[in-house]
Amino acid sequence: MIDPAGPVPPADPKEHLARIADSISRDMDQLLAELKAPERLVAAMRHAVLAGGKRLRPVLVLEVAHMLTASTHSKTQLPPGAPQIAMAVECIHTYSLIHDDLPSMDDDDLRRGQPTVHKAFDEATAILAGDALQTLAFELVATCGHPKTPMMVRDLARAAGADGMVGGQMLDLAAEGRFGQATTIGDTYALAAMQAMKTGALIEVACSLGAHLALAPEEERQRVARFGQSLGLAFQISDDLLDVNATAEQAGKRTGKDEAAGKTTWPGLLGVEGAQKALDASLGDALTALEPYKEAAAPLQFLAVSLKDRTI
Amino acid sequence: MIDPAGPVPPADPKEHLARIADSISRDMDQLLAELKAPERLVAAMRHAVLAGGKRLRPVLVLEVAHMLTASTHSKTQLPPGAPQIAMAVECIHTYSLIHDDLPSMDDDDLRRGQPTVHKAFDEATAILAGDALQTLAFELVATCGHPKTPMMVRDLARAAGADGMVGGQMLDLAAEGRFGQATTIGDTYALAAMQAMKTGALIEVACSLGAHLALAPEEERQRVARFGQSLGLAFQISDDLLDVNATAEQAGKRTGKDEAAGKTTWPGLLGVEGAQKALDASLGDALTALEPYKEAAAPLQFLAVSLKDRTI
Repeated sequence: MIDPAGPVPPADPKEHLARIADSISRDMDQLLAELKAPERLVAAMRHAVLAGGKRLRPVLVLEVAHMLTASTHSKTQLPPGAPQIAMAVECIHTYSLIHDDLPSMDDDDLRRGQPTVHKAFDEATAILAGDALQTLAFELVATCGHPKTPMMVRDLARAAGADGMVGGQMLDLAAEGRFGQATTIGDTYALAAMQAMKTGALIEVACSLGAHLALAPEEERQRVARFGQSLGLAFQISDDLLDVNATAEQAGKRTGKDEAAGKTTWPGLLGVEGAQKALDASLGDALTALEPYKEAAAPLQFLAVSLKDRTI
Repeated sequence: MIDPAGPVPPADPKEHLARIADSISRDMDQLLAELKAPERLVAAMRHAVLAGGKRLRPVLVLEVAHMLTASTHSKTQLPPGAPQIAMAVECIHTYSLIHDDLPSMDDDDLRRGQPTVHKAFDEATAILAGDALQTLAFELVATCGHPKTPMMVRDLARAAGADGMVGGQMLDLAAEGRFGQATTIGDTYALAAMQAMKTGALIEVACSLGAHLALAPEEERQRVARFGQSLGLAFQISDDLLDVNATAEQAGKRTGKDEAAGKTTWPGLLGVEGAQKALDASLGDALTALEPYKEAAAPLQFLAVSLKDRTI
């Protein structure tokens, strides 16, 4: 599957991924610096976007695009429009964090070690900054100049919308009993289904968008989407474990809050050891999906495996 | 400019426009009935979208597309994708109403004679219903199947985003002194500039999208965009006048609230009579932009002129 004349895998995948994450942060900084809009609105958008974060989703866009461009076209450079698509996914992710943190939602004061947007600014500004970041995401896709633009807008919208990320947040709130009667999430199947919408859909579509960028055949897109699904599940299990194991200082956000809120979690359903086994299983699935790409998949393999000892 | 063999103008433009508005309402009803998403989220989206309303923006999309298709291509049927684009613009408009009505924004309990979404449901559901409607708008554009899809996503995003509708709401809140120091809007220039972003941009882009749908030459797009700008200004002046003159029962929302909030309005700056003159002037500009289309412009002319005696 992989071209033997393809790129040499990076000697240090961790450094390689960190370099990509840095380039995304710089691109986003520049994007927001050039944004023509009311000052306070831009400041709130910057606060949320530039507070740090792992840039997991945009890294997936770029790394999948890179891997499949090498594999499908024996080219090593990124396809045109790739930075725009990576930033678009990060804009959607950041908007969802701003809105989820609001007092009427999860009511969080701390995010990535910083005050949340409604704390640093105010609620109205936070709602509008989230709204504007969602719009900006679609403007970025629309103007990326790639022939698959309509398909990429469609897939990103479906992942982010009522049947994806937003719907998942709705189910999560319902499970907390926020709308009168709690719709209990009582088993791993229901938990995985809710999380597949709330966080999985965006992680999966990041991989799909990388495949669209690479003009990869549909079969390849489906393969990397499966990688994204398994990685998304692993990510969520590791997130639940982090909430149990890490201190707030380590995690940069309030921890232990799942238990306090009576939320159903992987450690809650399976115990810490059982959750660690479930994490291993989903990482195994993710790595299996990458097998055809051999050494070109090294950075994505590293990224997946590193979920095992997350501290942030 | 207009093809002499073009369509006969509708005998009753009022009935013609009402029929278009009805068809949009039916399309939106069906769209939401088919939406796969958590029940409460869909119910909140339905509550907002189907509460009525004049469907001004989607009517503009369809009527401009119709007029320019007749004028440019001597065809009378709507171009493919037109209903999707019309619905997309209405989804953006409705999402903005839901978010603007929130307690941390304008704190309104009544909209189109119905409880606002956060009153009928709750704040979290209202935020998510607005978010999902924005996403749905871009999904609709992405899947409309029209060759100008990327351009239409871009233009809609620019009109709705930080330098358009969302930025305008930010400026409006700032002018109320919501962020510490009030940035007073002291003259008609500043008022028109804020309103051009907050409400004008979406009305203008509705006309532009109609031109894109019709594959009209850029010169035509600019002409109908100018019509949209003038109409947007007229609409806002008439809205300010309505707030002074109408009862809440007539308007279907709280009235007299501009004065209560100390907002700068057209009647506030110019007096009721002065504002009525400004309304006439902007309607004159709107009608001038329509002149080349002669009788094919009859429905849009009627729509513009009817802003003079709005009661809703």
